[in-house]
Amino acid sequence: MILLDGKATSARIKEQIARQVEEMVAAGGKRPHLTAILVGEDGASKTYVANKEKACAAAGFTSEVIRMSADTTQERLLAEVARLNADPDVDGFIVQLPLPRHIDENKVIEAIDPRKDVDGFHPENVGRMVLGLDSFVSATPYGIVRLLEEYGIETRGKHCVVLGRSNIVGRPIANLLSQKGNPGDCTVTICHSRTQNLASFTREADIIIAALGVPEFLKGDMVKDGVVVVDVGITRVSDDSPKGYHLAGDVAFDEVAPKASYITPVPGGVGPMTIVSLLQNTLKAASKRQGR
Amino acid sequence: MILLDGKATSARIKEQIARQVEEMVAAGGKRPHLTAILVGEDGASKTYVANKEKACAAAGFTSEVIRMSADTTQERLLAEVARLNADPDVDGFIVQLPLPRHIDENKVIEAIDPRKDVDGFHPENVGRMVLGLDSFVSATPYGIVRLLEEYGIETRGKHCVVLGRSNIVGRPIANLLSQKGNPGDCTVTICHSRTQNLASFTREADIIIAALGVPEFLKGDMVKDGVVVVDVGITRVSDDSPKGYHLAGDVAFDEVAPKASYITPVPGGVGPMTIVSLLQNTLKAASKRQGR
Repeated sequence: MILLDGKATSARIKEQIARQVEEMVAAGGKRPHLTAILVGEDGASKTYVANKEKACAAAGFTSEVIRMSADTTQERLLAEVARLNADPDVDGFIVQLPLPRHIDENKVIEAIDPRKDVDGFHPENVGRMVLGLDSFVSATPYGIVRLLEEYGIETRGKHCVVLGRSNIVGRPIANLLSQKGNPGDCTVTICHSRTQNLASFTREADIIIAALGVPEFLKGDMVKDGVVVVDVGITRVSDDSPKGYHLAGDVAFDEVAPKASYITPVPGGVGPMTIVSLLQNTLKAASKRQGR
Repeated sequence: MILLDGKATSARIKEQIARQVEEMVAAGGKRPHLTAILVGEDGASKTYVANKEKACAAAGFTSEVIRMSADTTQERLLAEVARLNADPDVDGFIVQLPLPRHIDENKVIEAIDPRKDVDGFHPENVGRMVLGLDSFVSATPYGIVRLLEEYGIETRGKHCVVLGRSNIVGRPIANLLSQKGNPGDCTVTICHSRTQNLASFTREADIIIAALGVPEFLKGDMVKDGVVVVDVGITRVSDDSPKGYHLAGDVAFDEVAPKASYITPVPGGVGPMTIVSLLQNTLKAASKRQGR
């Protein structure tokens, strides 16, 4: 069993990105700039945004966090999006989700200029990704593809079972891995809450992408020997520890790992790959804007 | 075995559309208008466009065909697209594909105003469809979904195997049928030229959508009893008939039909549903433009 080490892999990619940034700057270019809008006080969101800021600094990007109160109106948020769309110093920006309930997330996402939409959530980027055109692929599926690529995992002709059909993970990764190329060319099955006899699919899978958000859902008897397992789940489960919780993936690691050929840990698997993919998208946006 | 009669179903839907158009007109509205751009002299394309014109007339739409010579420049075609985008009398328009090789199809499709893109090929419409947002769903997948709906076929929790990953059929229908709702909520497997042991998937399928473009590819021993089969293939196969060819589907009908619970004929299955879906999209575009 080989561990798909997202922490080490992402650190390596981050260094590559940092080198490219220094080359850009040495050639007279501007450092890539990522702005994040954070609305409200959600604990997990604050942590994510702080991690993104840290990653930006490590890669030589400049960054800014715009903090807006939880009672910000949709109109006010849309005005901020419009301002960032027009700001020539901002290469890419994200609006950290989830947003407070009184704001229509789709409306906000659709207001982002697709060329600055480094989260890849805008319908135009989603459509371009699905059609196999150049686009910003959203960070989690992009990170998964990079991880498979870095470990040289053969995907061609393999049966990949995706657990979960969310717009931010399950659906895009199913589309990406069924496309031509490598990683890609998989026969892909997308399973979800309505799937009957789910284990009959996972037992036939060469590759499983688990993105249901149900802690330890995938058990040892649901996979075949030699399977490649990518665990996207990351749920806070309450416990008696000083922190009060621990992070659990969708995979019962101790049962599944002995049967797997490759498997991601949680944490330290897909998570760090996600952040580095956001950097990669921002670098791409900056390069395009600077015509490099 | 019940025949999924696309001809009769589409005729019924066409009558519904015609009634809605007369209501629009009686209420002081304008008839929906569809324009088709036809570049070059491709025989099949001319037939398709002629059929679309006929269908428009039958539904009470006005329509126009803009014929451009095969040596039309990309610039000239893009200028025509821009003119139609701006023309308030045009509710929707399509550029008949394929285009001559010297023209970049993606560039042309992306130039179409998504609100007039009744073929549903623009990345923004594809993205919105994938995300489950309101959009123009392209005509063939939309027609398939309508056909399943009209026959009251239960899709929830069923295993649907899609053969083919094209951007105009396989990929969108895989996305649609895996979404929440009915038709929808299927566990979907997308197979293609790189799939290994394809029959092992089709034999497990409750529903098969065949869109490979390989005549009589799906044989009787590749399906289980009671399967629902939708045949999207329509290939001209040369023969000794006066016409010189006949139309063949992707399904060996004589072998598969006796095992199927429902099956589409070719022709007379998906084909007529495709045209009526284009009308439906155009009616929707017109209704939106008129604020109805």
